[in-house]
Amino acid sequence: MDDIVALCKRRGFVFPASEIYGGLNGFWDYGPLGTQLKNNIRDDWWRQMVECPPLGLDGHPTQIVGLDSAIIQNPQAWIASGHVGGFNDPMIDCRVCKNRFRADQLEEYECPKKPSKQAGQHEKCDLTEPRQFNLMFESYAGAVKDDSSKVYLRPETAQGIFLNCKNVLDTMRVKLPFGIAQIGKAFRNEVTPRNFIFRSREFEQMEMEWFCHPDEAIQWFEFWKDQRMEWWNSLGINLDRLRLRDHDLDELAHYSKACVDIEYRYPFTDPGYGELEGIAHRGCFDLAQHQEHGKVKLEYFDQDRNERYIPNVIEPASGLTRAVLVLICEAYTPDDSRPSKVYLRFHPRLAPIKAAVFPLVNKDGMPQVAENLYLDLRKQYTCQYDVKQSIGKRYARMDEAGTPYCFTVDGDTLNDQTITVRSRDTQQQQRINLDQAVEFLTESIGA
Amino acid sequence: MDDIVALCKRRGFVFPASEIYGGLNGFWDYGPLGTQLKNNIRDDWWRQMVECPPLGLDGHPTQIVGLDSAIIQNPQAWIASGHVGGFNDPMIDCRVCKNRFRADQLEEYECPKKPSKQAGQHEKCDLTEPRQFNLMFESYAGAVKDDSSKVYLRPETAQGIFLNCKNVLDTMRVKLPFGIAQIGKAFRNEVTPRNFIFRSREFEQMEMEWFCHPDEAIQWFEFWKDQRMEWWNSLGINLDRLRLRDHDLDELAHYSKACVDIEYRYPFTDPGYGELEGIAHRGCFDLAQHQEHGKVKLEYFDQDRNERYIPNVIEPASGLTRAVLVLICEAYTPDDSRPSKVYLRFHPRLAPIKAAVFPLVNKDGMPQVAENLYLDLRKQYTCQYDVKQSIGKRYARMDEAGTPYCFTVDGDTLNDQTITVRSRDTQQQQRINLDQAVEFLTESIGA
Repeated sequence: MDDIVALCKRRGFVFPASEIYGGLNGFWDYGPLGTQLKNNIRDDWWRQMVECPPLGLDGHPTQIVGLDSAIIQNPQAWIASGHVGGFNDPMIDCRVCKNRFRADQLEEYECPKKPSKQAGQHEKCDLTEPRQFNLMFESYAGAVKDDSSKVYLRPETAQGIFLNCKNVLDTMRVKLPFGIAQIGKAFRNEVTPRNFIFRSREFEQMEMEWFCHPDEAIQWFEFWKDQRMEWWNSLGINLDRLRLRDHDLDELAHYSKACVDIEYRYPFTDPGYGELEGIAHRGCFDLAQHQEHGKVKLEYFDQDRNERYIPNVIEPASGLTRAVLVLICEAYTPDDSRPSKVYLRFHPRLAPIKAAVFPLVNKDGMPQVAENLYLDLRKQYTCQYDVKQSIGKRYARMDEAGTPYCFTVDGDTLNDQTITVRSRDTQQQQRINLDQAVEFLTESIGA
Repeated sequence: MDDIVALCKRRGFVFPASEIYGGLNGFWDYGPLGTQLKNNIRDDWWRQMVECPPLGLDGHPTQIVGLDSAIIQNPQAWIASGHVGGFNDPMIDCRVCKNRFRADQLEEYECPKKPSKQAGQHEKCDLTEPRQFNLMFESYAGAVKDDSSKVYLRPETAQGIFLNCKNVLDTMRVKLPFGIAQIGKAFRNEVTPRNFIFRSREFEQMEMEWFCHPDEAIQWFEFWKDQRMEWWNSLGINLDRLRLRDHDLDELAHYSKACVDIEYRYPFTDPGYGELEGIAHRGCFDLAQHQEHGKVKLEYFDQDRNERYIPNVIEPASGLTRAVLVLICEAYTPDDSRPSKVYLRFHPRLAPIKAAVFPLVNKDGMPQVAENLYLDLRKQYTCQYDVKQSIGKRYARMDEAGTPYCFTVDGDTLNDQTITVRSRDTQQQQRINLDQAVEFLTESIGA
């Protein structure tokens, strides 16, 4: 895992936030390659969810619309959702070392005063009783700081969707079953952020709430479970390192009728697994809560059934920033035969850079040929142009960036209008015509 | 303006945040069409800035990389940037009506107790002296609420770029001049949020910091001024409603050497103008501040010049959410001849929905032909499938959504494999072959 974190920093995937000020615990910045990778995952999810949602149980296209709700909402929403009252972690302080631990993870932490010992086992440790600590970041909107102006940074994007369910039904001519999808930042004031970007205090979520008739909810739960596994697999994640884990009854929230996690075998959980996505059958809990607290009817009148009811909800909810971590872990491939000793084997669709263009020597007309090729390719694909150092070093850098193809313009190009294409995975090189480069990428990567 | 706000709500562009709880002053949610429009603008900006940046002063491609930094950074960064000390608005309270006004805009506000009067003109108004109010939202990271854990929500995305300038130089093999671009949320605790999404407390920015040698800064300032005007114009904004306004010397921040605003004639400023984008020559102020406060060298060694210096910065900074407002205002076209009385004349590239598919009657095999057409088109274009109500009403809805083309599958389609295309702007209909629909869109809108 340390190697992955180091590569992430070295190649511009992920930097510690505010690094020049010593960082800030639980916050990370996404560098040029990390941002591009994150955008690619984001766009792929949005495409599957909003632009090309799958065919549904009846074989016809499902209907899902997008949303982008505010991070700060009326605080009443978080009272209704249960987050103000119950979104807590039990926390324990040590009066000696002044450190803070999650009570339910105490045995996993070292005592900072004596790192070989578990927290609480250091002879001088003096632990408080666990107390409940609310994970929502608080702030104040408006010029006065008092209880009436207190607001929260959303700890999940889902509630913004429930708040707008009625707006969408009133304006978008959708009828049940349908979904609302959202991607955006969320914040949790984790007591112990850890494992790189796996558990950070600021992160990004991709959530879809699927509204349906209560009688069909279990069928849709199974449907989305399959869809979501297929999607992760389509990103190139090996099914050997993914698993579905049904929640035990005692893990389920009191309102939830079923919940399954899609888990990944992270380097820091191996041979165990950690959460990547949760698919939850939330019943009618959220809408019923908002109906009660908001004093507004959130029932749906189903014309086909001639029936009025609060829709049930199936929620596939995953972390976009966690997906970035999974894809980097999955792509990370040590290979001692290469100068870089490691390469990132991203699915070409997700690679931050699809192709690089290298002019090999600085001969008359050559840089211009290479630059024109770059200008041509970048109309369709994210490309990099690199003129520096030896060709071997340029390949090595692109291996570490996970770039699937490198095109080299060399001494023969001006004579016979051919270039070399080098494939990241096989390290094989082949000669193609200069004017076939776009076509080559389209065939290899897709349009 | 009221008509535009009403349309935005009615058609699902923008909803008041937490509307079922009475909203929250200064916060808005983007509905399905608003989200799609905002994403289209976001992607277009990203394309111009990061994926296909323009040719520079020397005729070669400029180099710009993307970034996505955290909203919450180490608070030291905001001390260095000057925001903790100086990002204030002067605020005045009325002791009688308990309302709060920006001192510099007092004459623009009505007294809430007697709305026909200006603030301060109501006989019983009792105004305080102006006091400075910091616009940054505050919060606390970690379990203890004290000065050591106080953090801020970023009031601009720019500082996250300055914080990472060194990281980018160390990892991305860029050399001066180059740029770092970022799109993301920012927060300002405005005393008086107003004019719909023009001045909201949570908003989205698109900022690029262009790092260059001090001697070239003015040339690059002019370069980006031209580029940015061209870009806004390429979105279909009429140059008659855009203007460049150079800041007066007394408007410039003390460190700024030049600043120009791109302004738009909003319905609520007409015949005047309001800000849309600022292009600022920031000198070396920000990097010098972070170098001093962060105690880390942020100087750049320029190999070509054999010279060590702190880069100068040119910053084109615009509001993505403000761009949504401008594009809706610009597209809004009253037309009494249409059933909808109004249509949105979006540039086809930015339209939230590119095409709609309507099966006209429910005849054997027809819905399936229409559905297949929809499934085919949506692979490349955001499409809507609508089976409900009369064809006239479906056109009217698409006019209000700004959808450039509607395809109708009717009684003749099964006989001769043709469909009707109706253009939003001309309302003209023409007959084309069913299998030419994708080609039609590609020719009309682009790939």
